[in-house]
Amino acid sequence: MNPIDGRPVATLEVMRDIIAQSPFNAFLGAEILVCADGVAELAVPIRPELTQHHGFVHGAVVGCVADNACAWAAASVAGDVLTAEYKLNLLAPAVGDRLLGRGRVLRASSRLVTAAADVYAERNGTERHVATMLATLMPLGAQTPS
Amino acid sequence: MNPIDGRPVATLEVMRDIIAQSPFNAFLGAEILVCADGVAELAVPIRPELTQHHGFVHGAVVGCVADNACAWAAASVAGDVLTAEYKLNLLAPAVGDRLLGRGRVLRASSRLVTAAADVYAERNGTERHVATMLATLMPLGAQTPS
Amino acid sequence: MNPIDGRPVATLEVMRDIIAQSPFNAFLGAEILVCADGVAELAVPIRPELTQHHGFVHGAVVGCVADNACAWAAASVAGDVLTAEYKLNLLAPAVGDRLLGRGRVLRASSRLVTAAADVYAERNGTERHVATMLATLMPLGAQTPS
Amino acid sequence: MNPIDGRPVATLEVMRDIIAQSPFNAFLGAEILVCADGVAELAVPIRPELTQHHGFVHGAVVGCVADNACAWAAASVAGDVLTAEYKLNLLAPAVGDRLLGRGRVLRASSRLVTAAADVYAERNGTERHVATMLATLMPLGAQTPS
Repeated sequence: MNPIDGRPVATLEVMRDIIAQSPFNAFLGAEILVCADGVAELAVPIRPELTQHHGFVHGAVVGCVADNACAWAAASVAGDVLTAEYKLNLLAPAVGDRLLGRGRVLRASSRLVTAAADVYAERNGTERHVATMLATLMPLGAQTPS
Repeated sequence: MNPIDGRPVATLEVMRDIIAQSPFNAFLGAEILVCADGVAELAVPIRPELTQHHGFVHGAVVGCVADNACAWAAASVAGDVLTAEYKLNLLAPAVGDRLLGRGRVLRASSRLVTAAADVYAERNGTERHVATMLATLMPLGAQTPS
Repeated sequence: MNPIDGRPVATLEVMRDIIAQSPFNAFLGAEILVCADGVAELAVPIRPELTQHHGFVHGAVVGCVADNACAWAAASVAGDVLTAEYKLNLLAPAVGDRLLGRGRVLRASSRLVTAAADVYAERNGTERHVATMLATLMPLGAQTPS
Repeated sequence: MNPIDGRPVATLEVMRDIIAQSPFNAFLGAEILVCADGVAELAVPIRPELTQHHGFVHGAVVGCVADNACAWAAASVAGDVLTAEYKLNLLAPAVGDRLLGRGRVLRASSRLVTAAADVYAERNGTERHVATMLATLMPLGAQTPS
């Protein structure tokens, strides 16, 4: 998938810098693994601070992994983006060693990017599909530095 | 709005106990203000740990406030619930002193609860509407203790 | 709610002309009742052609009433728009004499409009809330006549 | 994917009978092509009655194809289902000879089925991806014949 409008896109290095500047992602411990050509992947180690009262990872954390996967996939073809909206379906309780989020761009224009992501909980090397997201993002114009 | 099935419902006291047991909500600093008759309200003080790289509150935190507002409104008529899915529209950057989430049940049965929530960012006593959510939740059966 | 960007907006008369040119809305028998200031209302008489195999109005028809209500509310502040995405929650079976859709703009900019709608089934003068929608629409630029 | 709970599931023959009893699907001219093991496919010939004022297939028709694809995929593992909610992202204008909807179950239990669908517009034998849906459906219990 090519960059839209010949726009400068995010690379893995750029994204690592941006994530380091995001206090909430620092709290999550989000590590970006892939960010290129409309695809992104990240990992978040599961620890007690991220759980809810049943002991599962809190849905908002799962949602954040999916949202990041969509936004970072979008950034790889559209540069800086804002999330306009998303829908998250929670498929199974998230327990295990770490969460993996995998996002992909479905369609990109200079006005809107549609992306999807899946979240997996990895335990002892086995992945379980725990959530899926469908999101709409807005590329920020060159005149809107961020 | 009446409890469904004469089921034991969550009260403000019960919810405060549950929230205290939820490490992620403890990190957020979520305080529940209202939980009765299909309506819930909560407040989360805005602090740097909750922001992203533009300095706004991270979308996942806004989503968590909305998700909590929906789930706690649902709990007030259906007892313990699991979130099946939600959609969040982000309307404006969230900046200010605290986030307020207000949820309400649109329809409740023993199988599904539909709820909506709005999130406001309060700055110097003035509220701005920053997000809206539509969610589907599943009441946990008496045979599924949690 | 004011027009965005001083853009020419849709009025009830303009919308009636556009609806008359839309074969699918002609099949539905959609009548627009209100279209101004970020609010729209329409009515669709229920007839057998609009039902599914349980005898209820088909979900896609309910969805179309909600989608129209969102789009027409958006058109009243933003002129011609395209629907980017929507979420529909079906709350109760739709039976009765006619469907009423009521839409309202939650936030409008020159790039995106967020709108919500509710659908009611009217029977013998009594309304029942059967669906709710949250939608994102894109204003078409002046350079994109339609 | 196996039937949930050993429940009687929909087959292509059963679905053809049900579709024939659905006046709105008869209007659409929906033909089911596949319905087994959590997957469904259908085709709808594009004709002027299904379009809106720009000449594209109306979004509600695209949504109906996606909704049918999700519901019929769900029926293949869960028998009769009701759609609780769905989200539709419209990716490109739908023009051409026919719409193809392809649905798949992401997760099924006796309480909820999560399904996804994609809609393609076929023109001169070439497919274009025009929409994607994420849906939640409720299996109807054996005690709720329909």
